[in-house]
Amino acid sequence: VEQKEDAYLEKEFEDMHAADISAVMEGLSAEDCKYILELLDPNVGADVISDLEEDIRKNFMALFEAGELSKYLDQTDSDDAADILNELPVKMREEVLGSMQNQEKVLYIVDLLHYEEDCAGGLMAKELVKVNINWNVHQCIEEVRRQAKKVDKVYTVYVVDDHDILLGRISMKRLLIADEEDKVADLYEPEIAKVHSYQEDEEVAELMQHYDLEVIPVVNVQGRLIGRITIDDVVDVITEQAEKDQQAMSGLSEDIEERDSLWAMARARLPWLIVGMSGGLLGANFLGGFEDELRLVPAMAFFIPLITATGGNVGIQSSTIVVQSLASGGFQGSVFDRYFRVLIVAILNGLTLALLVYAFNFLFIEHALAVVVSVALFSVIMIASFMGTITPIVLDKFGINPALASGPFITTCNDLIGLGVYFTVAKMLLHS
Amino acid sequence: VEQKEDAYLEKEFEDMHAADISAVMEGLSAEDCKYILELLDPNVGADVISDLEEDIRKNFMALFEAGELSKYLDQTDSDDAADILNELPVKMREEVLGSMQNQEKVLYIVDLLHYEEDCAGGLMAKELVKVNINWNVHQCIEEVRRQAKKVDKVYTVYVVDDHDILLGRISMKRLLIADEEDKVADLYEPEIAKVHSYQEDEEVAELMQHYDLEVIPVVNVQGRLIGRITIDDVVDVITEQAEKDQQAMSGLSEDIEERDSLWAMARARLPWLIVGMSGGLLGANFLGGFEDELRLVPAMAFFIPLITATGGNVGIQSSTIVVQSLASGGFQGSVFDRYFRVLIVAILNGLTLALLVYAFNFLFIEHALAVVVSVALFSVIMIASFMGTITPIVLDKFGINPALASGPFITTCNDLIGLGVYFTVAKMLLHS
Repeated sequence: VEQKEDAYLEKEFEDMHAADISAVMEGLSAEDCKYILELLDPNVGADVISDLEEDIRKNFMALFEAGELSKYLDQTDSDDAADILNELPVKMREEVLGSMQNQEKVLYIVDLLHYEEDCAGGLMAKELVKVNINWNVHQCIEEVRRQAKKVDKVYTVYVVDDHDILLGRISMKRLLIADEEDKVADLYEPEIAKVHSYQEDEEVAELMQHYDLEVIPVVNVQGRLIGRITIDDVVDVITEQAEKDQQAMSGLSEDIEERDSLWAMARARLPWLIVGMSGGLLGANFLGGFEDELRLVPAMAFFIPLITATGGNVGIQSSTIVVQSLASGGFQGSVFDRYFRVLIVAILNGLTLALLVYAFNFLFIEHALAVVVSVALFSVIMIASFMGTITPIVLDKFGINPALASGPFITTCNDLIGLGVYFTVAKMLLHS
Repeated sequence: VEQKEDAYLEKEFEDMHAADISAVMEGLSAEDCKYILELLDPNVGADVISDLEEDIRKNFMALFEAGELSKYLDQTDSDDAADILNELPVKMREEVLGSMQNQEKVLYIVDLLHYEEDCAGGLMAKELVKVNINWNVHQCIEEVRRQAKKVDKVYTVYVVDDHDILLGRISMKRLLIADEEDKVADLYEPEIAKVHSYQEDEEVAELMQHYDLEVIPVVNVQGRLIGRITIDDVVDVITEQAEKDQQAMSGLSEDIEERDSLWAMARARLPWLIVGMSGGLLGANFLGGFEDELRLVPAMAFFIPLITATGGNVGIQSSTIVVQSLASGGFQGSVFDRYFRVLIVAILNGLTLALLVYAFNFLFIEHALAVVVSVALFSVIMIASFMGTITPIVLDKFGINPALASGPFITTCNDLIGLGVYFTVAKMLLHS
């Protein structure tokens, strides 16, 4: 592929969408990527750079001079440009900004660099079309025409007053079918959903999902229109959140992908493995206290995996239900109602499993132990249900991702609780 | 609230967005909802109905006559109307369709009812604005004006030929700033992304995310334009998929929410609990073969939870990494490369944990057993890593949701494998 056949490559890429070119690039070396990029139109090249995966882009940008990068950033939407600059060393960042041609874009970007990545300000782009409430439709269309080059996709036209305070919006459809002499004041929609620059990205995602919006305006504390957030960025927030939850549930402590370095992979896995291991050693220590009992009735040991596994499964199920109900806006109903429901479900499941196991054990082991196992199993299911329900609620209260509660933490706790319950029940029932 | 103070309620709800009214309704009884709905403008009422959660809407619609419902469906977008009708008994569905006023909408809906819910055809709406390639801008604007009442949000204008074959699109911005005499043929964008009606909803979601689209046209096998899918529906698909994955990971077998009936809750949890329990009983059976060894060295039992828990944790971590890489378009690189990486990471983690446990055990238990535990732990980590990597790939090949591989299935398997390895190693090392 890389025989430097410029003419052929140029032709190949000409008809491709930027997102497809960047997908191709993700399989190539950084040098080859740069080579291809230089064959492309800078406008397309800018899109390709913003579409690249963050970690690939990083390696890739290390090959560029500030002057080369600035050429592309001149063409990039301000939000993507700010994200890209955020990945660069500070010195390089300044140099790139210094050599950019598009001074308006530089101002936009510098403003965006102030915001944290995970708030509305960090998601927004500065490019938008706004019109004054005192204008008429003809003036609006002139303004759209003037700004058209600058703004890639015009979702809607925002209406502001003389002080840039956001008043509402007017749709493109409305502008298109209106009379040139109509007043903006008569046509615009007041009372539109908006977010403040400091709101969290997840709040923004929720709001846009709730109202089915494809774009939302961002205002500052004075109510001035300072940017807009488009749905594609919010889709990324939603996807990322889902990935984070999955990773929390499976005990991965960093955002990790299959192609990351081996050391990063091992490191992301170790912390929770060590937590689990410590739990296991604690469990061993606990069981050490029952050495004599185990010597007498080794069959007690047979059911350790049954008890711990069931406790783990029940705990994870319970916590996932709560995590999802927290994510979708919380449980409607009283606290009492919630726990009452948890209790009933736990009793239903506990009884079913305890009876099944009893029926099985009745045939194979001595009766006393069969009773112990079933009583312990029932108790473990009850406790694990409550632990699984409470843990995510508590984590959420402290601002920790509740999905952690469905991870190795809950399994480790439940293992220990399960062992405790099992051997306590055994001691009580077998000794009496 | 429900003192039938019509005037007050009407005023309250007048300024509220439909999505907020339906959120309020979700806390009320079906009767109260119906009462409120009748106070609202039918247009707003239609939006409120489409915004309600599916299970709440079901109860609620049981209170309506066909004639009452049809009044609202006349105002609803065809995709939402089809979804709502799909929830009704067939007889009621026919009656509602029969009493609707808007005959064009009825045709739309009947067409949509043919498609499965989880394909592009099931997601699309029929309302869209299309123009003929031979028209000029003036004719386009007339067409937008004509269709404006019918189409709620015009995202883009599609360009078709005389046979309705999709050729491209023309943005509202383009139309607004163009000259009235300009030809569509000179202005439109050819080569746009589109989907076929039979494509899966997840494919559609991926495509729209890939190209950052807020709307995508749907064509039939002949290439005729038959509908469009908007990003808000795709966001729902993405959110649902994330929830499904979480539920698969936690061993819930049905789509369950905290407010579902107690019986549904218990039923959704039982299948995987029983799988786990059967695994536990198999484990008990297996351990039964080592009764004599356990009587001799009860300390062997102490480390059962350590071994099974670590196997479970490692397996879930491994499978989650693979699941996420499957979801984001697959692992780039050779099969050999993938397994080589898994192997190295497993060795790194296995050695770390085995050495830590050995160091701890060295102080507390006899040396031979300490060696057995560490060797078994290392082997379990190696096997669980491979099991966790292979299982989601195999499930995916058979068209099963690979997230299931991070659930109780893998934990149960790993428990059994862990026990097998531990006691085999013990037998080999302790007897020699």
